[in-house]
Amino acid sequence: MKLTKYLSVGAALTLLPTFALAQDAAPSFDEIGPYIMTTLLFLVGGFLVFWMAAGFAMLEAGLVRSKNVAMQLTKNIALFSIAAIMYWLVGFNLMYPGDFNGYFALNFVPTVLEPVGLSASDAALDYASVASDFFFQLMFVAATASIVSGALAERIKLWPFLIFVVILTGLMYPISGSWQWGGGWLSELGFSDFAGSTIVHSVGGWAALAGALILGPRLGKYKDGKTVPMPGSNLALATLGTFILWLGWFGFNGGSQLAAGTVGDITDVGRIFANTNMAASAGAVTALILTQILYKKVDLTMVLNGALAGLVSITAEPLAPSLFGALMTGAVGGVIVVFTVPLLDKLKIDDVVGAIPVHLFAGIWGTLAVAFYTGNWGAQITGIIAYGVFTFVISLVVWTILKGVMGIRVTEEAEINGLDMAELGMEAYPDFSKG
Amino acid sequence: MKLTKYLSVGAALTLLPTFALAQDAAPSFDEIGPYIMTTLLFLVGGFLVFWMAAGFAMLEAGLVRSKNVAMQLTKNIALFSIAAIMYWLVGFNLMYPGDFNGYFALNFVPTVLEPVGLSASDAALDYASVASDFFFQLMFVAATASIVSGALAERIKLWPFLIFVVILTGLMYPISGSWQWGGGWLSELGFSDFAGSTIVHSVGGWAALAGALILGPRLGKYKDGKTVPMPGSNLALATLGTFILWLGWFGFNGGSQLAAGTVGDITDVGRIFANTNMAASAGAVTALILTQILYKKVDLTMVLNGALAGLVSITAEPLAPSLFGALMTGAVGGVIVVFTVPLLDKLKIDDVVGAIPVHLFAGIWGTLAVAFYTGNWGAQITGIIAYGVFTFVISLVVWTILKGVMGIRVTEEAEINGLDMAELGMEAYPDFSKG
Amino acid sequence: MKLTKYLSVGAALTLLPTFALAQDAAPSFDEIGPYIMTTLLFLVGGFLVFWMAAGFAMLEAGLVRSKNVAMQLTKNIALFSIAAIMYWLVGFNLMYPGDFNGYFALNFVPTVLEPVGLSASDAALDYASVASDFFFQLMFVAATASIVSGALAERIKLWPFLIFVVILTGLMYPISGSWQWGGGWLSELGFSDFAGSTIVHSVGGWAALAGALILGPRLGKYKDGKTVPMPGSNLALATLGTFILWLGWFGFNGGSQLAAGTVGDITDVGRIFANTNMAASAGAVTALILTQILYKKVDLTMVLNGALAGLVSITAEPLAPSLFGALMTGAVGGVIVVFTVPLLDKLKIDDVVGAIPVHLFAGIWGTLAVAFYTGNWGAQITGIIAYGVFTFVISLVVWTILKGVMGIRVTEEAEINGLDMAELGMEAYPDFSKG
Repeated sequence: MKLTKYLSVGAALTLLPTFALAQDAAPSFDEIGPYIMTTLLFLVGGFLVFWMAAGFAMLEAGLVRSKNVAMQLTKNIALFSIAAIMYWLVGFNLMYPGDFNGYFALNFVPTVLEPVGLSASDAALDYASVASDFFFQLMFVAATASIVSGALAERIKLWPFLIFVVILTGLMYPISGSWQWGGGWLSELGFSDFAGSTIVHSVGGWAALAGALILGPRLGKYKDGKTVPMPGSNLALATLGTFILWLGWFGFNGGSQLAAGTVGDITDVGRIFANTNMAASAGAVTALILTQILYKKVDLTMVLNGALAGLVSITAEPLAPSLFGALMTGAVGGVIVVFTVPLLDKLKIDDVVGAIPVHLFAGIWGTLAVAFYTGNWGAQITGIIAYGVFTFVISLVVWTILKGVMGIRVTEEAEINGLDMAELGMEAYPDFSKG
Repeated sequence: MKLTKYLSVGAALTLLPTFALAQDAAPSFDEIGPYIMTTLLFLVGGFLVFWMAAGFAMLEAGLVRSKNVAMQLTKNIALFSIAAIMYWLVGFNLMYPGDFNGYFALNFVPTVLEPVGLSASDAALDYASVASDFFFQLMFVAATASIVSGALAERIKLWPFLIFVVILTGLMYPISGSWQWGGGWLSELGFSDFAGSTIVHSVGGWAALAGALILGPRLGKYKDGKTVPMPGSNLALATLGTFILWLGWFGFNGGSQLAAGTVGDITDVGRIFANTNMAASAGAVTALILTQILYKKVDLTMVLNGALAGLVSITAEPLAPSLFGALMTGAVGGVIVVFTVPLLDKLKIDDVVGAIPVHLFAGIWGTLAVAFYTGNWGAQITGIIAYGVFTFVISLVVWTILKGVMGIRVTEEAEINGLDMAELGMEAYPDFSKG
Repeated sequence: MKLTKYLSVGAALTLLPTFALAQDAAPSFDEIGPYIMTTLLFLVGGFLVFWMAAGFAMLEAGLVRSKNVAMQLTKNIALFSIAAIMYWLVGFNLMYPGDFNGYFALNFVPTVLEPVGLSASDAALDYASVASDFFFQLMFVAATASIVSGALAERIKLWPFLIFVVILTGLMYPISGSWQWGGGWLSELGFSDFAGSTIVHSVGGWAALAGALILGPRLGKYKDGKTVPMPGSNLALATLGTFILWLGWFGFNGGSQLAAGTVGDITDVGRIFANTNMAASAGAVTALILTQILYKKVDLTMVLNGALAGLVSITAEPLAPSLFGALMTGAVGGVIVVFTVPLLDKLKIDDVVGAIPVHLFAGIWGTLAVAFYTGNWGAQITGIIAYGVFTFVISLVVWTILKGVMGIRVTEEAEINGLDMAELGMEAYPDFSKG
C-alpha cells in the first residue's frame, strides 16, 4: 500500500526499497535489468495494442453509414470489454497451459497474477512479470474480435454478436493459439508466425467470413448483378482509425519479440519497428498507385486498407526481412487488397469494411512469405490450413446455432431505418440532417 | 547544448557521456538503473495522462450539442494550459512542501527544475528526476479541472469558468492534495488513495456539483416534471474520448506506483495495468447488461460512462485487488453510474456529461473500497468527508462570488443560439445543416 | 526466428539469451544499460513522432471545408508513406553520411539495418541501434512534408504535390539537414537547433510559402480587397489534431536528447518534457488572451495555432531554458501567430491552416532565441538564412517546373465542387447535407 505520492528523502529511505537495501538483500540491477526491460516492453507494447481497439472502433465507425454508427461503436467497446473478461476467466490459461498434449488443454482456470511486491527470488528473471505478459496477450484476442465486428456491420444483431465474441475470445482463439504460442503441435512442426498474421488476423478473418456467409449481404447491396456502393459516413474517422492501428502495430509486432533486456533483443525490436513502418507505407503507396492506374482515381479507403494489409502481411515475420524485404511484403499486401475487395463483391460476400481482404487474405500471404526465410513451406501451409479449417468450421457451426436459436439478423425495417434507432434508440449524429 | 544529432563514433567518444567515462568517474549503471527507470515511468506515465486531456475534450465535445462544441473544445484546451501554468507557478510546491504543518504550507514559489546535465551525485538516486515528477503530477491537476468543464457545459461563460480553473488548479487542489500526497494530516491518519479516486476525481466532482447547483440546469432541460433528453452531437467523438481516457489511465494508475526500478515495483506496475483494464471492462459490461435489462435497449453513453466509472473506482487501489477484485470494484462503478445519472436528473441537477456520477460517486465508492484491503474504514471515511467539505464549500463560495461579480451564465439568447456563435463567433461544424 | 510466444522455463533456458548466458559470454547489463535505454528512447520517441502524422492529418482535415476533406486525408497518409520510403531509399544516408565535405554527400544508398540478433561486441554501445535511430529520424522528415500539405490545401492537385514530397523528403530535407545534424558546415560554425525549429519546421514552412506563392490563393479568398473567411469544417478534429501533435512533441523534443542512459541524460529528457509542455501552454494562453483583447472574442483556431507555435518555438532549445524561459519562448510564439495570420492575408498569401505563421515564423523566432543561451547570434542568423534561401529557392524552382510540366492546380470547376468529388470521386461525409 502506498500512502503518499511524495516522501521526504528521510522517509523514503525507511519506507521504499532503496539502492542501499538493494545492494544488501536484493539482486543487483545488473541481474534484474533484463526482467525489468522485458516487463516494460510488455507494458508499453500492451498499451499500444490496447489503443488498436480504439483504432478498430474509429475505422469501422467511419466506414459504416451514419445510421449504424452508434451500434458499431457499442459493439466495439463491448467486444473489447468482453474479451478482457473472457481471456482472464479461461482464455489465457487455455492458450498457455504449460505442458499439454499440444492440441487442447483442460485448463479452465482464471488468471492469477503474482503477489504484490514480488521479490526477485520469486520472479522469472529470464522473462517478465506474469501480469505484464497477461496484459499484453489479452490485447491480441481483442484485436481478433474487432475484425469480426467490422465485416458483419450494419445488419447483425448486438447480442448474438456478443455471444459469438464470448466463444471466440474465451475458447476458439485461445485453443487454436495454444497450438503455436502455447508450445503445441504446430510449434513442434516448425510453423512460424511471429506476431500473428494467422493466429490473430486470419483467425479473425475466418470467423468474419463464416459470419458473412451465414448472415448474407446488406439489403440492396447486390442488385441486378451490380454492386451498389454504400460509402462510409466519415472518412476522417476511418483515417484516424487507420493511423491508430498503425501506431498500435509497433506494440503488436515489437512487443512480440518478448524480450528487451539484451543488445540483441532491443536492437531486434528496433528492426521490427522499422520493418513494420515500411510494410505499412509500401501497402499504402501500392494501393495509391494501383487505384490510380485501375480506376483513374485514387481511392482513399483502398489506401487505408492498403496500409493495414501491409501491416498484416509483415506481422508473421517482421524481424527477418531487410527494409527492402519489408517493402515487398507490404506492397504485395496492398495489391491483394485492391484486387480482392471487388472479388468478394463479385461473390456477393458483403464485408463492410474490407476486413476479410485485409486480415484474412493478407494474413495468409504474410504467413506464407515467412517460408522465404525459414524454407519450411510445409509447416507454413499446414498452419494456414489448420487455423482456417478449425476457425471457419467452428464459426459456421456457432453462427448457424445462433441463427437458429435467437436469430442473428435485424429486421428489414430496422436495417433500413438503421440499427442505431432500432436497436439502441439513439443516433450517433442527431444534430445533423441526413443527405 | 547538443549541436548535432548524429556524430561519428570518434566525436561521440569525446563529446558525449560514454560508457568508458561512466566507469571511471560516474556511478555504474547498476547504481543509477532504478533512478532511470522511475524517471522513465514518470515520463511515459506523464504523457499518457497528458493524453487524457484530449480524451476529456473529445468526450465532452461529443456529448454536447453541436452549437456548443467549439466552446467546449476551447474550454478544454484553455483549462489544460492554465492548469499547467498555475501548477508551475504555485501548485506543485504547495502540494509537496516537504516538512509542513500537515494542513497548509505557505510555500508560494514556482517550480524550479534540476540543472541541465545533472550529475549522479546530485540526484535523488532512490527516486526520480524532479522534472519528470513535476511533469507527471501536473497532468493530474489538469484532469481535475477537465471534470468540471464537462458538468457545466452548454451554459457557463468562458472567462468565469477559466478564473475558477485558476483557483482550483493553483490553490484548492494543491492544498487539499498536500494533506495526503504531500505527507500531511490525512496521510498521518492512514488514509489511502493510491492514484486519486478522491484526491483527483472526487475533488473535480465536488467542484462540478457546486458549480451545477449555482449555475442551474440548461434552459428547457426539466419541463413539467420531466427530463428532456438533449443528446450529444457526436457519439463517435465521445467513444474516442473514452478510449483515450482508458489508455491514459494506465499512466494515471501505473505511474502512481512511483517506482519502477526493482522487480517488485515493475511487477506491481504490471499488476496495476491489468487491474485497471479489468475494472474498466467490468464497468462497461455492467452498464451494457443493466441498461438492456432496465430499458430493454443498450445505452451507449451509459456504457462509456460505465467504463469510466470502473476506471475511477479502481483508482484508489489498483494494486492490492486480484483481477476478480478489480472486476467487482469496476462492476459496482458501472452500477453506480446507471442508477445515479437518472437520480441527478430527478434532483434537477444538470450534469451534461455525467461527470458527477462517474467522478464523484464512483470516486467515493473506490475510496471506500480501499478499506476492504486496509481495514481502516475510519481513515477512508474521514478522507472522503474532508475532501468533500473542503472542495464543495470553497467551490460554492468561489462560484457565488463569480456569479455576483461578473455573472457565470450566458444570456438566454446565447444559450438558445449556442455558445459557439454567441461567445466565440464561430461554429464547430459550419458546413453541415442542423437537424 | 521466434517460434513461440511463450515457452516453458526449460525451453527458454536453451533457446533464448538468458541472464545465465549473459553472465558468461555477454557483457553485463551494467555495460549495455545505456545502449538499451537510448534505443528505447528512440523507439518511444519515434512512435510519438509517428503519431504526429495523424495529428497533422486531423488538424488539416478539420481546417479545410468538407468538400476537400477526403483529399486532405489522402495527401497526409500518402505523404507519410512516401516520406518513409524516400528516407530509406536515399534520405537517411544523405543526411548522416559520416565524414563529408559539410555541404553535400554523394551517398545515394538505401539504409541497411544491423543484422538480426546483434551481439553486444558489434553494437555502438555508446549510442543506440541504427534501426531505432533510423526509425526516429524518418518521422521528422514526414513532419516537414505534412507542413506543406496544410498550407496548400483545397486547390493543389494530388500527384504534383506527391512528386514535390518525393523531392523534399528524399533530397532537399536530407541535404540541408546534413549541414547541421550530419555534422556539416553549420554545425562547425556553432549553429544550434536542438530538435529542429529550423531544420524541420521552417524548412517545411519555406517549402509551403514557395508553393503558396506559385499556386495562388483559393478562388474567392480575396475579393474587393477583403479576406473572405472560409471556416474549417470540423473544429473537433482540428482540436484533436492539436492534442495529438502536442503529445507527439514530447517524443520530438525529448527523443532529440539522443541519450537516456545516464542520470544527466534522462534528467534532461524530463526537463525537455516539462519545458515543451510549458511552451505549448503559454502559446495557447497567449493566443486566448490576445484574441479576446483584439477581437473581443476568443478564436479557437488561434488558440490551437498558439499552442502549436509555442511548441515550434521551444523546439530549437527545449533543454537550456528554465520553466519561466520556456513560458516566455512559447508566449512569443503565440503572439507571432495572432499577428502574422492576418498579415499573410493582407499579402494575399493563402495559407489554409496557418502553417507558415506556426512553422516558419515561430520556427525563426525559436531558432533566434537559442542565442540567448549560446550568445552566438551570428551562427543562428546564418543558419536561418541558409535554410531559408536553400529551401525557398529550390522549392520555387521545383514548383515552377511542376506547374509548367503538369500543372499544379485543379480546374476552377473542381475547386468549386470540391477536390473530393473531382479528384477522388468520393466524399468524406456523404451522409450529411451541406449547409
